[in-house]
Amino acid sequence: MIPPMVSAPTLPADSVGIVETQYLDLPEPVELDCGQTLHPIRVAYETYGTLSPERDNVILVCHALSGDAHAAGLSKTPPQGSTRDGFAAADRDGTAGKGLGWWDGMIGPGKAFDTDRFFVISTNLLGGCRGTTGPSSINPATGEPYGSDFPVITVADMVRTERAFLDALGIERLAAVAGGSLGGMQALEWAILFPDQVDAIVVIASTHALHPQGVAWNAIARDAIMRDPAWQGGHYYGTGRAPHAGMGVARMVGHVTYLSAPALNDKFGRRLQFADDIRHTITEPEFEVESYLRHQADSFVKRFDANTYLYTSRALTYFDLARQHGGGSLERALEHVSARTLLIAFSSDWLYPPSASEEIEEALGALGKPVELQVIDAPYGHDCFLIEEARQTPIIRRFLADG
Amino acid sequence: MIPPMVSAPTLPADSVGIVETQYLDLPEPVELDCGQTLHPIRVAYETYGTLSPERDNVILVCHALSGDAHAAGLSKTPPQGSTRDGFAAADRDGTAGKGLGWWDGMIGPGKAFDTDRFFVISTNLLGGCRGTTGPSSINPATGEPYGSDFPVITVADMVRTERAFLDALGIERLAAVAGGSLGGMQALEWAILFPDQVDAIVVIASTHALHPQGVAWNAIARDAIMRDPAWQGGHYYGTGRAPHAGMGVARMVGHVTYLSAPALNDKFGRRLQFADDIRHTITEPEFEVESYLRHQADSFVKRFDANTYLYTSRALTYFDLARQHGGGSLERALEHVSARTLLIAFSSDWLYPPSASEEIEEALGALGKPVELQVIDAPYGHDCFLIEEARQTPIIRRFLADG
Repeated sequence: MIPPMVSAPTLPADSVGIVETQYLDLPEPVELDCGQTLHPIRVAYETYGTLSPERDNVILVCHALSGDAHAAGLSKTPPQGSTRDGFAAADRDGTAGKGLGWWDGMIGPGKAFDTDRFFVISTNLLGGCRGTTGPSSINPATGEPYGSDFPVITVADMVRTERAFLDALGIERLAAVAGGSLGGMQALEWAILFPDQVDAIVVIASTHALHPQGVAWNAIARDAIMRDPAWQGGHYYGTGRAPHAGMGVARMVGHVTYLSAPALNDKFGRRLQFADDIRHTITEPEFEVESYLRHQADSFVKRFDANTYLYTSRALTYFDLARQHGGGSLERALEHVSARTLLIAFSSDWLYPPSASEEIEEALGALGKPVELQVIDAPYGHDCFLIEEARQTPIIRRFLADG
Repeated sequence: MIPPMVSAPTLPADSVGIVETQYLDLPEPVELDCGQTLHPIRVAYETYGTLSPERDNVILVCHALSGDAHAAGLSKTPPQGSTRDGFAAADRDGTAGKGLGWWDGMIGPGKAFDTDRFFVISTNLLGGCRGTTGPSSINPATGEPYGSDFPVITVADMVRTERAFLDALGIERLAAVAGGSLGGMQALEWAILFPDQVDAIVVIASTHALHPQGVAWNAIARDAIMRDPAWQGGHYYGTGRAPHAGMGVARMVGHVTYLSAPALNDKFGRRLQFADDIRHTITEPEFEVESYLRHQADSFVKRFDANTYLYTSRALTYFDLARQHGGGSLERALEHVSARTLLIAFSSDWLYPPSASEEIEEALGALGKPVELQVIDAPYGHDCFLIEEARQTPIIRRFLADG
């Protein structure tokens, strides 16, 4: 008998197709906010669409806390983590490893970031654990992984690294920088650090400075990791132990903050695992929402590095445009921005609430800069930026077409 | 030279004065929802005011997750924990050990629970770690502390224990049962389990069933404790180790949920520990709110038992009047209630939101039962029930005077 042909999965017409993550080593060290310089730096990236001869159609897409370079298309990379599911939180911010990229609904022919027109570049951020240099990379000074000897980085350091990476690719100008959450912070930082090189920014479900409750959630998540004895002061690589228990708790905290209370109610209610009654147990999950959280924790720790979580979380809490660039004034921080700015926020997002985007809109507006804010009424909390693709698409397409 | 006299602290005229926690051993076992019976049971309690000859002026006050019997007055007990501070969250739900009781502003001559009129009794709940039998008590079957062999208890079990305790004191009827949060759950459970013995209930910042996000926060807190290797499956007593790291994380999670985002913003903003700039550190607190949370965690673990946290948290997530007593219907669950009901909720409380109290009000109203809901507009979140004493006082005094 002839075995049946194994056929490739059928990809929809608006997919960017099969993609592969690429890697580039930066030729020069990058100077960091903490005063150190970092070298070598490898950057993992993917590209979608075609670079125009004038090199004027580049959109840089920046990911959020637990993301990676695989933003669109179907990855050739072997599975490294959970696949994208209907409830985007499962692999929010992307990290699918295999399967569709984390913003596949937004990047492709005819999509929000239209690859028929734009050349979209997505990189794994500095400090990452998905191909770009980070705490799990080898420290050339010791020949061992950096661990907690990796320098403490900022969002500006991520952006400087992206700038150096694009230089190495021979790309000077960006038609746009876009991202949600921490990705939106990077877009804002780009517009401030390199005002003459960015035509537009698309800042989604983000902020100019995380509010104190968000700072608190991040501090708790980091403490959960660092209090895990398996963290070993950050030098757990090669020991056969890793702070999975603590990072699981961190992920669960994050997960609940990414959703809204009504969304949790709609999805789980108070449904029990065993419908008939409670089982009187402390250690086992009893409610569906408890089981769901444990599952999220377990799958996350298999695909993500705890030190990257620490460094990225620290960077996003540090991010504060007024402090960094304005002597306390957001308006002054944004003074030299020349990019057109599109802000998108979601009504139910309590981690990056619409009020933060309104403050950016007001400051840019007071400076007479072109800015547009769209608040989308949607129930899924912060995760809306990954879920509500259909409603973001016309807004983003029109904004980019106006450019 | 004659040393100066050491004088007792001056107590205000509306204080119940110096108090001492007392202990009573129940004569009979208590039957638990899980099917087990528990014996012996010791109950820690305090009383304030004078029992009337008719024994008809008794108010039972029930505490919340991390509380104890010391609800009012100044304790003679040696310090066992942190003292009450201005921001009540520091020792919310009471557990001052020394110092003022956790509801001192509400209990005393002329106060909300007026000891000139009422005989107020406060007990440490079943499963507690402040004098009442709980997981840290000796298991008579082994001669060792129960640890995780303590039976999994419910709010109804707490109430049955309180019922047995009052029987032993010779008190049959209650003029009122009152409490906030988990304390309010106990008050509701009293009105259902013993409808003929409760004249009124005062249910503050509570619910008939915690919403799924609240279930999630509690699950995360418990997981943080149980994932700490020092928990040792619940049998950590006498080992020289305790899950302080995990319980610290649990406490921090709880703490943030007890406050509102605006309250955190008002209190801390994004102020740095060292005002000049960030220090580029992962391990050290950088923001004031980070330092505050660590302090709360550290002081809590010194005075509270992790297993009690687990058991109490589990009980309050199980609590679900419709499931327990109404075959899924809240109205049916409340069918036999005869107590007058006062519900107080706080506008900024997102853990026990006003909507939960509204549902109770509607169900009781549909049944034609006497019920009153007061939603107090206040910014401090769930902790309002400990902080907003002045605004609760006239409401409660009037409600109790109507009886």
